[in-house]
Amino acid sequence: MRMGPAAGRPASLAECRRRDLADPLGPLVRRFRQPRAGIYLDGNSLGPPPRAAITAVRRALEAEWAGELVSGWNTADWIGLPARTAARIAPLIGARPDEVAVADSVSVNLFKLAAGALALRPDRRVLLAVEGDFPTDGYMLQGLAGLRPDLRIRKVAADRLAGALDGEVAVLVASHADYRTAALADLPGLSRRASEAGALTLWDLSHTAGLVPADLAAAGADMAVGCGYKYLNGGPGAPAFAFLARRHHEAFANPLPGWMGHAEPFAFAPGYAPAAGAARLMAGTPPILSLTALHAALEVYDGLDPADLLERSRQLADTFLARAGPALEAHGFTCVSPPGRGDRGGHLAFSHPHAYPVVQALIAAGVTGDFRAPDLMRLGFSPLTLTRAQAWEAAVRLERVMDSGAWRDPAFAERRRVT
Amino acid sequence: MRMGPAAGRPASLAECRRRDLADPLGPLVRRFRQPRAGIYLDGNSLGPPPRAAITAVRRALEAEWAGELVSGWNTADWIGLPARTAARIAPLIGARPDEVAVADSVSVNLFKLAAGALALRPDRRVLLAVEGDFPTDGYMLQGLAGLRPDLRIRKVAADRLAGALDGEVAVLVASHADYRTAALADLPGLSRRASEAGALTLWDLSHTAGLVPADLAAAGADMAVGCGYKYLNGGPGAPAFAFLARRHHEAFANPLPGWMGHAEPFAFAPGYAPAAGAARLMAGTPPILSLTALHAALEVYDGLDPADLLERSRQLADTFLARAGPALEAHGFTCVSPPGRGDRGGHLAFSHPHAYPVVQALIAAGVTGDFRAPDLMRLGFSPLTLTRAQAWEAAVRLERVMDSGAWRDPAFAERRRVT
Repeated sequence: MRMGPAAGRPASLAECRRRDLADPLGPLVRRFRQPRAGIYLDGNSLGPPPRAAITAVRRALEAEWAGELVSGWNTADWIGLPARTAARIAPLIGARPDEVAVADSVSVNLFKLAAGALALRPDRRVLLAVEGDFPTDGYMLQGLAGLRPDLRIRKVAADRLAGALDGEVAVLVASHADYRTAALADLPGLSRRASEAGALTLWDLSHTAGLVPADLAAAGADMAVGCGYKYLNGGPGAPAFAFLARRHHEAFANPLPGWMGHAEPFAFAPGYAPAAGAARLMAGTPPILSLTALHAALEVYDGLDPADLLERSRQLADTFLARAGPALEAHGFTCVSPPGRGDRGGHLAFSHPHAYPVVQALIAAGVTGDFRAPDLMRLGFSPLTLTRAQAWEAAVRLERVMDSGAWRDPAFAERRRVT
Repeated sequence: MRMGPAAGRPASLAECRRRDLADPLGPLVRRFRQPRAGIYLDGNSLGPPPRAAITAVRRALEAEWAGELVSGWNTADWIGLPARTAARIAPLIGARPDEVAVADSVSVNLFKLAAGALALRPDRRVLLAVEGDFPTDGYMLQGLAGLRPDLRIRKVAADRLAGALDGEVAVLVASHADYRTAALADLPGLSRRASEAGALTLWDLSHTAGLVPADLAAAGADMAVGCGYKYLNGGPGAPAFAFLARRHHEAFANPLPGWMGHAEPFAFAPGYAPAAGAARLMAGTPPILSLTALHAALEVYDGLDPADLLERSRQLADTFLARAGPALEAHGFTCVSPPGRGDRGGHLAFSHPHAYPVVQALIAAGVTGDFRAPDLMRLGFSPLTLTRAQAWEAAVRLERVMDSGAWRDPAFAERRRVT
């Protein structure tokens, strides 16, 4: 990857400010609460609060829960809130509203879809997954295999997926973007290749939803899951989403068929009858306060072109690289993210032998990134919530932390943080 | 059941007020936001907001999410919030803190425990359940059977459970209180009988937690699930809880082994290693805003004796019955809840051929109860949030609705409400 100044990259803080002012997406940052101090490069892990989300949750506490009590299911339309939230996510991932459900967590949704997919390919026994993919996805597949001893989980390196798609594979489970390096999978190509091999695809969009358009329908993808609290800014532990292509709706049986996925939840019928469309992927009662935050957070996407957001995120990363390049090279960082701008998602990952204390020192200097074991510093460039001026300034502070040796303070090496 | 005046029941509104004033638990109602108008007899379906819960969620929005961003996992101890919440639930159900996990929904937790229990009884294939039990519990068992075609679900009437506990039964799944009638199961007796038969017990405490002490450890129960938003007042769709007796911790494998149930979630290890104790029942990232409300709501139980709460709930129901009895009898209501005070939970259910419009008319008259198909009016007597004077006044308003024929207004017969 080219680190340092380059054609098209800003060459000064003043130029960053000029470009920020000229950017039609620039005013969007005002729709978010800004960090009290510092620069937040971890929106890829937990997005900052949209002002609309804070307002909506306050209203849910006061006007809805306190004001309406159980009637809120009707008067505040809590019962329709998952579908209204799904409808806001659908255009961001190239889906139709009835192909998306908002429910539970990414992990639980992955289990539902993987288990349900197996029943659609009853003559196949292999789940194909990626070595080093996000761990919880692998844990959930192990859990499923514990219930279905006939299953086999085949793990291969990301660049060997296409070749591993043989006639035994029921489902390919893979992330759209690698959580460490942000490397993007070839979602359209692998979806097509899987389809030709008679396998289904289950994509984890956690590290791309709201940033890199997945265009699921155009790609012919079968299923997907994704996270509500990273680029979508839905708040800590926001409910997740699940995508199920319309062509599978009739045949798909949710293995966790809770009452919220029932065609008539309040009929209290003894037998299960699935709701129409992806809504059958719901299970139990959704956490309304957290779901309210997610629903309101998604309002900011109204009328935006996802492609513009991706371009803006890449300009933010380029801005950081333009200023930070020489310091990164001088201090022994290696960028492990793909060099090609079009090959990666919204963050940059750098390996460094002392990545843990470096990240802590950087946080102390007012720039929040995160550490991922064993030796990665991740810096995220969320397009909605950051300015080019902040990306530039983050590079300045990183240089200072490294040049001054501030990161060598033994306090930064103590492993107290969980994230 | 004795409806109408009786020894020990208040005989007037003035007497209700005197007793309210003399009751040491009386001041607790001030810790809840009171309905803007009317009397709320549906805390068994959705509890009203404790003031502490509203304050805590506001703080989570402002000081934690907006103020700390991703650092909130550490500085606001979001990572420890499920365990801190579990520790507040444990004494209410007769469990030790490490025997309780707070996660997901009742439905999803039931699936985890039922599926995991089967592996503890590998030579048995029968799930024993109750005819007419809460539907979503049955749906989840059906979902499990869809993944495990060797399973059989045996449904029997509640009064035939003991006889059905033969050597084929792996797990008995039953509610502590019937969601329609509030009839209490013999939890200690059935737990003992199941244990003698070599079966495990999985109790659904959704309609008793926070009201009828389950004393799970004393009863020798193996597993349980329960709801955070009914008597526990955790807010709409609050996370649920799961109980796993300590003797099963080592052997129990969560079939939905998400990263939050991992021994070291942030190590991102490729292999799953369960957390110690019931924490292994967690799956994905918890919805922090909704969980914050539940955690704060439980503060009100600090220092209370669960037995006192149950007695207070029964006095509230007695108060209602003392005043409403003659009107209930005159207007064709039949109480389907058990006649014995000690045999039921916190609500009373009455069948009536026109229960639906009657409940709607009662809501219009400022008394919120709920309708359950096909013909039940449910009125709940939550011990923390109601006064005897309100229970009396509710009876007065019900009499008025019936005597005046107000419920015959055709508008009340239109089925628009989902709950």
